[in-house]
Amino acid sequence: MTSEVRQKATLAQDAAAIMNRLTTEQKNTALSRMADALLTEQTAIIAANKLDLERGREQGTSPSLLDRLALNYDRVAAIAEGLRQIVELPDPVGELLEHFDRPNGLKVNKVRVPLGVIGMIYEARPNVTVDAAGLCLKTGNSVVLRGGSAAIESNRKIVEVLKQALSNTEMPADAIQLIEDSDRASVNEMLKLNGLLDVVIPRGGASLIRNVVENATVPVIETGAGICHTYIDESADFTMAADIAFNAKVQRPSVCNSMETLIVHEAFADRHLSELAERFQKADVELRGCEKTAALLPGTKLVTDEDYATEYNDYIMNIRIVPNLDTALAHIRRFGTKHSECIVTENASNAERFIQDIDAAAVYHNASTRFTDGFEFGFGAEIGISTQKLHARGPMGLPALTSTKYKVYGNGQIRG
Amino acid sequence: MTSEVRQKATLAQDAAAIMNRLTTEQKNTALSRMADALLTEQTAIIAANKLDLERGREQGTSPSLLDRLALNYDRVAAIAEGLRQIVELPDPVGELLEHFDRPNGLKVNKVRVPLGVIGMIYEARPNVTVDAAGLCLKTGNSVVLRGGSAAIESNRKIVEVLKQALSNTEMPADAIQLIEDSDRASVNEMLKLNGLLDVVIPRGGASLIRNVVENATVPVIETGAGICHTYIDESADFTMAADIAFNAKVQRPSVCNSMETLIVHEAFADRHLSELAERFQKADVELRGCEKTAALLPGTKLVTDEDYATEYNDYIMNIRIVPNLDTALAHIRRFGTKHSECIVTENASNAERFIQDIDAAAVYHNASTRFTDGFEFGFGAEIGISTQKLHARGPMGLPALTSTKYKVYGNGQIRG
Repeated sequence: MTSEVRQKATLAQDAAAIMNRLTTEQKNTALSRMADALLTEQTAIIAANKLDLERGREQGTSPSLLDRLALNYDRVAAIAEGLRQIVELPDPVGELLEHFDRPNGLKVNKVRVPLGVIGMIYEARPNVTVDAAGLCLKTGNSVVLRGGSAAIESNRKIVEVLKQALSNTEMPADAIQLIEDSDRASVNEMLKLNGLLDVVIPRGGASLIRNVVENATVPVIETGAGICHTYIDESADFTMAADIAFNAKVQRPSVCNSMETLIVHEAFADRHLSELAERFQKADVELRGCEKTAALLPGTKLVTDEDYATEYNDYIMNIRIVPNLDTALAHIRRFGTKHSECIVTENASNAERFIQDIDAAAVYHNASTRFTDGFEFGFGAEIGISTQKLHARGPMGLPALTSTKYKVYGNGQIRG
Repeated sequence: MTSEVRQKATLAQDAAAIMNRLTTEQKNTALSRMADALLTEQTAIIAANKLDLERGREQGTSPSLLDRLALNYDRVAAIAEGLRQIVELPDPVGELLEHFDRPNGLKVNKVRVPLGVIGMIYEARPNVTVDAAGLCLKTGNSVVLRGGSAAIESNRKIVEVLKQALSNTEMPADAIQLIEDSDRASVNEMLKLNGLLDVVIPRGGASLIRNVVENATVPVIETGAGICHTYIDESADFTMAADIAFNAKVQRPSVCNSMETLIVHEAFADRHLSELAERFQKADVELRGCEKTAALLPGTKLVTDEDYATEYNDYIMNIRIVPNLDTALAHIRRFGTKHSECIVTENASNAERFIQDIDAAAVYHNASTRFTDGFEFGFGAEIGISTQKLHARGPMGLPALTSTKYKVYGNGQIRG
């Protein structure tokens, strides 16, 4: 018997052939209908979401997770509005990326095409179901969604609503597939579905992403993990440095572009560390420091290498004092995850060296690492932040969901 | 004890930090020295190659494999010349791909950067050792080479010569690493070296590539497998169709962009199949055909689905006669490997439909699939032909060996 995963991926692949032929207008019409339908059916969606919330409460789910899971009228409206924003974005499919005429008369066009079938593996938030579907469909792909079991009732209802919205449009309802099997085995089956899935994109915590990276034979776009650093150089302006570091840590600690370790030049630390630390402590940030830090801030818990290698996503911060830029660069090379790194300095040559030497998706001079984000970069949408170097790196907009094709026009050319 | 693979990959990674800082001129100087050294040391290289050839003969290696393995003065000169051609190519590293000023004053530059450390896993030909090293180094990467055991003496000598050539250059010799352990386990260790290798590129036969795709947790650029089709439409010009099909099959059957199955519209087949088949038979191509083919060409062996799914790389060709374009498209969708596909037709709308609908790296109208090649596309070099949709698709030039980085310049921006 064919499994749910294989069966639905096959339907998605068949639909992808139709998706590939749709015009931008046809796709936009379909996405607008989906947005309308979410609003029309919001009561039913919220009712389904209540079932997830009740089951979650019974199972002792944490309040913060329940909050992320919860839908209300405002949130459904925001999700629908997100779809409308995707409608407004330019369609990358069909874009002519390169053209060259060869001496033998061949005309070669390199154009953007859909990837085909995208597998999305994610956790609790039901808004990802709509977001991911909207972005994949806008770029002419089919999508196989595998959300967390905590949101299964919400996701089932949402996908039902989205598919129904596609009747009387040119977009095939089979382009959206939801895997309902909550067993981990269904994820692992997706990861091996070469020939049916063209890519798998995981969105979620470190263990979800690790499972995908370690087990997938389908190509993966790795997202998420971020151990980000802010290095305050000797010449940094105190107010700017304090504001940037504080923002990078405290503005939203739970996300991947927030800072985990603050690296401070010793001359700056001698002058300013106490004042700087006080600001973090007032915001209830737990500090863990190197020995020099502890000498300047008595009572600070000593940091370990394991701490340096941890993405806290919480109100905890490591502090390391270094004698020079080289030591800061070496620290980041050892513990960074190549996501987002920042130097605060008034020294232009140190800034350039940092930006050149650091191997990361985004490297900042005098700005918070929190800006590594599709919306902040002006992409208008974001499927995630790639932490790998292939295909897409950093915030991914719509072009990251496309591939290319060479269209070659001849008049009888053969190879000699 | 640290394994050879891990130890050498670590050296390569350390060297990558230096490679990332080299100017184009520094890289070109190093590559030119490498080319010089190959010529200076050609006698020693050919002597080492003799050891491989002798061992190969003792082990009963086929003459065609021995021929691919063999080096002589002309071949070493050609390899050195290949390096000089890489020197002449434009350096993609540092290229500004995008720039945007954000309303908050952030200046964002998206620039090309090296990938970091590239693992190359390949088979017998020792020229790949130099080719791959040259392309990886030109793009500022370190490379970990794992060639076939049949060429180990040649590869060891070649890599020794290349590394020695780097003394008195700015390029670190550690940027080139050769894995000498001939055990399959050393390949499998490379495939799991996340954090040390940024990508693995396999070059070789189907089983080598399958092993890499199935076992790698490091990102892979899949290359190679090609079940390519030529579809001769009803309106095709006979001479053009015959020339293109013959070229696609016979000009070099052993490569991935050669044709395996000829699909012919029934009206064309009724008029021309006998004459067409005769040309292939004269060239000693074994024909396997569908029932209609056998009816038109009595004595033709009947083709099976397994035949349709086989990359022969040999003087064997399947023929299928179809009633219309749709059946041809469906056949290619089922059996194609998304490499190179061709339609021969005088009907422009059929041509456009074929080019639009077929999901492949390169789609041809009235030209041989044999043109899917980095040199034929004018890239001046080729690291392989990607058959996946992520990162690079089709012939890969130097840009395929790069990633990107966002360099973000601020003056104190924080996120609100």
